[in-house]
Amino acid sequence: MKVAILGVGLMGGSFAAALRRRRLTSRVVGYDLDPQVCARAMALRLLDEAAASPAQAVRDADLVVFATPVGSMPDLLGQLAGAIGPTTILTDLGSTKSDVIAAARQALGPAFERFVPAHPIAGGEQPGVDNADPDLFQGCTVVIAAQAQTRDDALERVEALWRVCGAEIVRMQADEHDRILASVSHLPHVLAFALVAQIAGQPDAQRKLSLAGPGFRDFTRIAAGSPEMWRDIALANRAALGQELRSYVAMLEDVEQALARGDARWLEQLFDLASRTRRNAGGGARG
Amino acid sequence: MKVAILGVGLMGGSFAAALRRRRLTSRVVGYDLDPQVCARAMALRLLDEAAASPAQAVRDADLVVFATPVGSMPDLLGQLAGAIGPTTILTDLGSTKSDVIAAARQALGPAFERFVPAHPIAGGEQPGVDNADPDLFQGCTVVIAAQAQTRDDALERVEALWRVCGAEIVRMQADEHDRILASVSHLPHVLAFALVAQIAGQPDAQRKLSLAGPGFRDFTRIAAGSPEMWRDIALANRAALGQELRSYVAMLEDVEQALARGDARWLEQLFDLASRTRRNAGGGARG
Repeated sequence: MKVAILGVGLMGGSFAAALRRRRLTSRVVGYDLDPQVCARAMALRLLDEAAASPAQAVRDADLVVFATPVGSMPDLLGQLAGAIGPTTILTDLGSTKSDVIAAARQALGPAFERFVPAHPIAGGEQPGVDNADPDLFQGCTVVIAAQAQTRDDALERVEALWRVCGAEIVRMQADEHDRILASVSHLPHVLAFALVAQIAGQPDAQRKLSLAGPGFRDFTRIAAGSPEMWRDIALANRAALGQELRSYVAMLEDVEQALARGDARWLEQLFDLASRTRRNAGGGARG
Repeated sequence: MKVAILGVGLMGGSFAAALRRRRLTSRVVGYDLDPQVCARAMALRLLDEAAASPAQAVRDADLVVFATPVGSMPDLLGQLAGAIGPTTILTDLGSTKSDVIAAARQALGPAFERFVPAHPIAGGEQPGVDNADPDLFQGCTVVIAAQAQTRDDALERVEALWRVCGAEIVRMQADEHDRILASVSHLPHVLAFALVAQIAGQPDAQRKLSLAGPGFRDFTRIAAGSPEMWRDIALANRAALGQELRSYVAMLEDVEQALARGDARWLEQLFDLASRTRRNAGGGARG
């Protein structure tokens, strides 16, 4: 199986690494806007070939993986539509689904039935191909937002690859995915970015940061993420994210009022609900 | 040196453990509202003796360490004022300083000059004496908010103990401490509690939490903290926290507007400032 990876960052590089480690591919061709990234991926033996253009990368590919920031997808899909082979399967790794699906539907024509919209919920806030990890997807959830037109064989092929890479598949509607991810991923990222940016804009930023403890470091770890990637995600999912943000601001206004009236009971109930929920959710209290 | 620890949780227990490990104490007596906590601390060999009352714990103590939630300090100080020996040094581990100092000033009378207000900025979101760690304070910063009345010998004694435990001392005014900690600690805790509580209150909470990735787990780790402790901190520092919360809500309203008008450039600038600041601040991107 010849695989083309478009966008060789942490996610694209890790998917290439995962497929190679499990001997699922005979040849991996990569394309990245930055030629040095492809050179680095070659040096790391993640790619067999660095293509000079997206169209060259997808030539004769059995599987094309879109691993670029979601904002670049409409252009990239438009450029490629004529170059996709008649049996090539397409998939993506994007953090939003409705916008990517709409772009693919518009650009791909008949090939849209071979496009399998996917989102591996995997992290690694150290971006870039240098941090690519063949086990990044081990134990992670991959949301598959198949459409009515999506061919079963394409769907099953992509899901099988993810399972071999150690991921668990959850099928879901694109709008439900986007609404849930706005709540548990996009909003927390925006909140962490906003907090760090607010501190950074103050004259005593350095003194404040020097007194930040381990809780602050945990809370703001996601604010080290890629500004371009998160700008794209925030805009791609702006309707759902805007709604989550408005409810959250309303919640913070309630907190502000409880503080102002010194309402110990209200605050404790809120904190207690959160604390019980977070402990039950698992995934590591700080040890 | 006989040490009395009032409140044998993660912080009090860890301070006892740190002092014992470094052979800085001949006898550690503990008191906790919950007698089972003291029994557990005895079993863990953190204490030599479990006192039946705070007054019994502080009898003949060379050092009394207040390690209870800050909201309990006024009552506890009031109960103890008459029981403190004439040369006993007092200190605390509280996350807020102005309120603790005001309570100590009011309760302690002449002994106030031997009270050294301290805040070790150390974490561990798994609360409780079972997680006590003699190295919890290794490499952490301890803010000392000495007052005009604070005796030099008391100050130097407490600072020396912290240094031996591996901490770095920063002397600071109480109000500056409270303002900075509102920004880099109390606000992030409130934000994390509020986010998890908001999700927990929704009908699809379980589904949302099942799709939360490693970024969410980092961001909300501090929401597993003790509701009582954080209620006390939020109320004790409500003026500074309220002010931080209001500026943060204003920032979120700016984000909301940028999203609504699709302002990619504004969002990217905000995220970029945060990302650069967070990466420079160090303390561990997720690997």
